[in-house]
Amino acid sequence: VADAPRRHDMASAALIALDWGTTSLRAWLLDEAGQVLDRQQSREGILSVPAGGFIAVFEAILSPWRTNSDPLPAIACGMVGSRQGWREAPYAPCPCAAVDLQHKLARVAAGASDLVIVPGVAFDPGGQPPDVMRGEETQVFGALAGSELSATFVLPGTHSKWVTAEQGRITRFATYMTGEVFDVLRRHSILGRTMSDGVVRPDNASFIDGVEAGLNGGSGLLHRLFEVRSLALFDRLSALDGQSYLSGLLIGSEIAGARETATGDHPPVTLIGAPDLVAAYRTALHIAGIAAEVADLEVTPQGLWRIAVAAGMIGR
Amino acid sequence: VADAPRRHDMASAALIALDWGTTSLRAWLLDEAGQVLDRQQSREGILSVPAGGFIAVFEAILSPWRTNSDPLPAIACGMVGSRQGWREAPYAPCPCAAVDLQHKLARVAAGASDLVIVPGVAFDPGGQPPDVMRGEETQVFGALAGSELSATFVLPGTHSKWVTAEQGRITRFATYMTGEVFDVLRRHSILGRTMSDGVVRPDNASFIDGVEAGLNGGSGLLHRLFEVRSLALFDRLSALDGQSYLSGLLIGSEIAGARETATGDHPPVTLIGAPDLVAAYRTALHIAGIAAEVADLEVTPQGLWRIAVAAGMIGR
Repeated sequence: VADAPRRHDMASAALIALDWGTTSLRAWLLDEAGQVLDRQQSREGILSVPAGGFIAVFEAILSPWRTNSDPLPAIACGMVGSRQGWREAPYAPCPCAAVDLQHKLARVAAGASDLVIVPGVAFDPGGQPPDVMRGEETQVFGALAGSELSATFVLPGTHSKWVTAEQGRITRFATYMTGEVFDVLRRHSILGRTMSDGVVRPDNASFIDGVEAGLNGGSGLLHRLFEVRSLALFDRLSALDGQSYLSGLLIGSEIAGARETATGDHPPVTLIGAPDLVAAYRTALHIAGIAAEVADLEVTPQGLWRIAVAAGMIGR
Repeated sequence: VADAPRRHDMASAALIALDWGTTSLRAWLLDEAGQVLDRQQSREGILSVPAGGFIAVFEAILSPWRTNSDPLPAIACGMVGSRQGWREAPYAPCPCAAVDLQHKLARVAAGASDLVIVPGVAFDPGGQPPDVMRGEETQVFGALAGSELSATFVLPGTHSKWVTAEQGRITRFATYMTGEVFDVLRRHSILGRTMSDGVVRPDNASFIDGVEAGLNGGSGLLHRLFEVRSLALFDRLSALDGQSYLSGLLIGSEIAGARETATGDHPPVTLIGAPDLVAAYRTALHIAGIAAEVADLEVTPQGLWRIAVAAGMIGR
């Protein structure tokens, strides 16, 4: 039932924060200090929302968090602000602090509430192709927690991001297609034929061998990939270990590329992401001699709260 | 009809030569000097041959080339000698001349004739993963044409090979998964979403831009791949040009990798392959400052004939 009593005190609620991505939707109820009072999660990522259906999903999320007074402000980050989302929020340029995003916020009227949508960030320095992110900027601002530190953040995933922050502003970043390349090679290339459907085990010797091959592979990634097959043909890589080797190879290559372009020049780097991926990257970074710390799991609601505060959405 | 009169003179026929690959079968009738008298082609590659069906396909190829005297010797190279083929012909080690292959030939009894199957070649120097080829060794020996030259051969394709020959022997080689990575990314990754089903045009500015990005990409291929997407998002790469850019990027990366490991250290390199791929690689090699020649199209029957002569199969 929508208005069933909840454990938290709605009187202290100050913000509804959403991370609305491609395949999932996470939502938090936050108080004025950014503390999490309640949370929800669903699989209603933007790809599964039918045309015109965003408002119904949004209202279902709002429903247990209704108040008797004015509706709470609501803010969302992620692919909901892409061309395929609810309302496009064009990219904010680098360099970019949390406070700068207020000029690029998109707004969509949703019944009693407005939803504010955080823009992605573009890095377009000229002389080289541009790069883009959408959602990761919010995680980085959450991890920075209002500080003016210089730091490097690594956000592993389908499209991994290496983000450099200087004095609290995102100054540059680079995307690596590591996760997606792993997935398409495993599922659709000849490499999958000598692999069983095991999981990637970063404590596995084959993962470590793969990381070293990737770190030392230079420009030869397309060759190193074929070695995954020849090692299997020579019975030097088991079907069970194939995925760990391939994952290590790609992560190692990503780290080598980031190191080469000095994207990761503020050690220790801070890892932000799902625990299994963060564990794999931490092992690989250690092999590369790069110290790594792990960010708090709640960086996304923290970032949304920071951006909302900077935009004057709280305590109006 | 099997024994219909043919234009060529069966009296001068000395060898039946087959290139029996994964998806196609090509066959040549050769005289004692290796001249092509006749040829056939079919789509009956090993993947389309049912279990126990190799002999029927082979006899259908033989049928127009029957003689009234002793059956002609027959030799085949390619995936027919793999574990998934008719009879496995284990790899011959590097360094390896055409004459060395005779010790590793596999033989299969096929009615009145025996079929001799050429082994693949393995490069397994220790201290690094092994590499393998099957079929390309025959093309290289055909291009060498019995000479004791030192040369670098580049065989573009699904799995491109860079082969170094020294004094007529294959001494080392490296495989690059360029063609297959192109295909799986175009068909199965997010990169395909901003590409129309155009063809790769090596005279296209986007192909050239891609080659330069690949040549200068260092360890950053996984990042450069994402640039294919961001360029499209910023309307700096059209849907029609996307495939040309991606192809150039991967070929450029392959050349950078080969140059780095000095696999291509006997310029000019000699290109062996289909005319469209050879044209693309020739353009990319030119951008890299590597002179390239193009091999005769008939290197495969020439190679099979050289191996058959070395094995004493001709004029017995």
